[in-house]
Amino acid sequence: MSREDIYRHQNFGQSSGIGARCGLVLVDFVNGFVDEDAFGGPHIAAAVERTGPLLDAFRSRELPIAHTRVVFADDGSQRNVFCMKVPSLSKLTETAAVSQIVPSLAPRPGEHVLRKTSASAFFSTGLSHWLRLRGVDTAVVVGCTTSGCIRATVIDAMQHDFRTVVIEDCVGDRAIEPHEANLFDMRQKYADVMPRDAFISLLAKG
Amino acid sequence: MSREDIYRHQNFGQSSGIGARCGLVLVDFVNGFVDEDAFGGPHIAAAVERTGPLLDAFRSRELPIAHTRVVFADDGSQRNVFCMKVPSLSKLTETAAVSQIVPSLAPRPGEHVLRKTSASAFFSTGLSHWLRLRGVDTAVVVGCTTSGCIRATVIDAMQHDFRTVVIEDCVGDRAIEPHEANLFDMRQKYADVMPRDAFISLLAKG
Amino acid sequence: MSREDIYRHQNFGQSSGIGARCGLVLVDFVNGFVDEDAFGGPHIAAAVERTGPLLDAFRSRELPIAHTRVVFADDGSQRNVFCMKVPSLSKLTETAAVSQIVPSLAPRPGEHVLRKTSASAFFSTGLSHWLRLRGVDTAVVVGCTTSGCIRATVIDAMQHDFRTVVIEDCVGDRAIEPHEANLFDMRQKYADVMPRDAFISLLAKG
Amino acid sequence: MSREDIYRHQNFGQSSGIGARCGLVLVDFVNGFVDEDAFGGPHIAAAVERTGPLLDAFRSRELPIAHTRVVFADDGSQRNVFCMKVPSLSKLTETAAVSQIVPSLAPRPGEHVLRKTSASAFFSTGLSHWLRLRGVDTAVVVGCTTSGCIRATVIDAMQHDFRTVVIEDCVGDRAIEPHEANLFDMRQKYADVMPRDAFISLLAKG
Repeated sequence: MSREDIYRHQNFGQSSGIGARCGLVLVDFVNGFVDEDAFGGPHIAAAVERTGPLLDAFRSRELPIAHTRVVFADDGSQRNVFCMKVPSLSKLTETAAVSQIVPSLAPRPGEHVLRKTSASAFFSTGLSHWLRLRGVDTAVVVGCTTSGCIRATVIDAMQHDFRTVVIEDCVGDRAIEPHEANLFDMRQKYADVMPRDAFISLLAKG
Repeated sequence: MSREDIYRHQNFGQSSGIGARCGLVLVDFVNGFVDEDAFGGPHIAAAVERTGPLLDAFRSRELPIAHTRVVFADDGSQRNVFCMKVPSLSKLTETAAVSQIVPSLAPRPGEHVLRKTSASAFFSTGLSHWLRLRGVDTAVVVGCTTSGCIRATVIDAMQHDFRTVVIEDCVGDRAIEPHEANLFDMRQKYADVMPRDAFISLLAKG
Repeated sequence: MSREDIYRHQNFGQSSGIGARCGLVLVDFVNGFVDEDAFGGPHIAAAVERTGPLLDAFRSRELPIAHTRVVFADDGSQRNVFCMKVPSLSKLTETAAVSQIVPSLAPRPGEHVLRKTSASAFFSTGLSHWLRLRGVDTAVVVGCTTSGCIRATVIDAMQHDFRTVVIEDCVGDRAIEPHEANLFDMRQKYADVMPRDAFISLLAKG
Repeated sequence: MSREDIYRHQNFGQSSGIGARCGLVLVDFVNGFVDEDAFGGPHIAAAVERTGPLLDAFRSRELPIAHTRVVFADDGSQRNVFCMKVPSLSKLTETAAVSQIVPSLAPRPGEHVLRKTSASAFFSTGLSHWLRLRGVDTAVVVGCTTSGCIRATVIDAMQHDFRTVVIEDCVGDRAIEPHEANLFDMRQKYADVMPRDAFISLLAKG
């Protein structure tokens, strides 16, 4: 059996759908993840560009929006196991250029900007409570990288019992195989995966 | 550049090593995940078999051991988003045969058996505190599936700042491509990945 | 200045109100907490009795209901720091009579019964997600003891951004001074505190 | 029976002791909590002063030290249920004078300074993992207020399975009755409570 057949045979890959109110989570769209010499990859700049109109759709409907940045303290006091595996992460500090959100997606007042030192946007950040207090039951996830912080954020969104949507052309990675392998896993087990324009149509109907 | 070259260029894939005290986390080694008509795959029975001697190594050293089972309430009261994506998960109830730990790895008194309704063994289970109180700083992860609960558990082990080790021949999956793709991701970002015998040698030296 | 004046001067003690959907959390209403020779106190039996009609009000409206029990593994494998401070807690095991929910408040199918080994009903139990998935934004807390698991649960309910209500005549304690001191603290900082009948009237209007 | 007799009869109030390595958690020792017109009380300045030599004892032994501040975003984007109960909390912003750590206890490089928007220093902050990675198994808690963020932090320290110590003359409150009532509760159920000099003697022996 093919990979797809096995999953279908075992009843995986159903849709969790969209609930009453969507929130947008933009994961790590910072300068350093667009730059291939830092943490970036060839598809991330394209994901940034495609995210612009999606962000506009959330802003025009006044839906909750959260941005994440990876930020470690300058003095090394937050060094953790993630930094042991990927030492260059510790360069992402509060004022470093690599750690600033890309200009085209810059947060506006009232949007939540959260700092994290781990993979998931939900881990030790209070994002879950922030979204819930604002009525969100559906987490729409974009950003980078697909096989890293997106995957970790999507698992956690589902675990916190948000219906979860990954916008497949608004996420990017540093290499193509992990990008595709992780979209497969997330679609089978954790989230609905769809292109931006299909999602915007759903939002407009909703 | 190849996938490997890109990651090396960006300084990924360093070793987080082994700390002062290891704990073993056996994820979802239950009957239903060995059965290909339930949630299983061809490599999981082999992973079960290879795990026996590893479990013995932890028992003979009196190191902390935790087993997980997926268990949903019989009356449907715990249905969650994970069940929306994979409806058959709700068959895994307290007394169902599919949800019992495989006989060859049956827990002994003093070993922690934890019930979960999500992917990660750490999520809403208190596993992190249980391990820490017993002095564990290194989580050794085995079980199934590599692309599902192993991946989720490993991200969380790292996020909880355990040095994390995946025993690559003691984890299994329902299809081979996701198994390999997820071992690649975990090795690059979250955990040291090694064969059982190499780990047992390290443990013996430690 | 009196205690009340100081808090008023500093702008404490405002109302967080009731949101769109209430959920009822019954904390540790088990046999052992009604028994003064186990963990109980003189006011807890009265709190149990007054809770009956409140539970009926939630059931008749089909609002989400969660019950907690303290349950430690028989083999001692879950012993924790809480047990160091209060060793007799470890007698509260799955089948012990002291650890069964009192008959008059016995859970019905579809109500969530969660086991905990700590003070807060939210800590490492997933209660927050369970309530959110069912649309709850307001946690109504009853049970025992006021100065123990109620206080811990109420802090956590507020921290998880639930509007929180303590029903003051449906909580009880083993001594009266801590009961009253903790009602004062919770009212000032974390929750609205009101008698059962006032709450039922609000629910009927809502 | 007196309050003390009841608790003794039920086997409460044992000692959890001190483990292998202590970490110091200084909770909310910021300007606004020393000022009685902001959030302060008459005993907090004295607690600050007595904390100086304790902080020195941790620094001279190179033990982990964490400071907390309550910090809300300037644009109101982090408003939460805690702010509904205590609206003036939202004045505690990144650059506000009231939200700066008092000069005599100013953090040094390598000490962890964490921002929180809730009561417990552990809630959604990652403090637990930060302490564990640095080998801490015993949380020593000082700061303010005893009946607020100290109580919440101490419950959570115990729940995360740290042996927990409250230094009773290094915590303070805005009124005396809640201070004493909460020291009683914490001593009975969650933490060892002792004066500074007794603790420093223990640390010197350890």
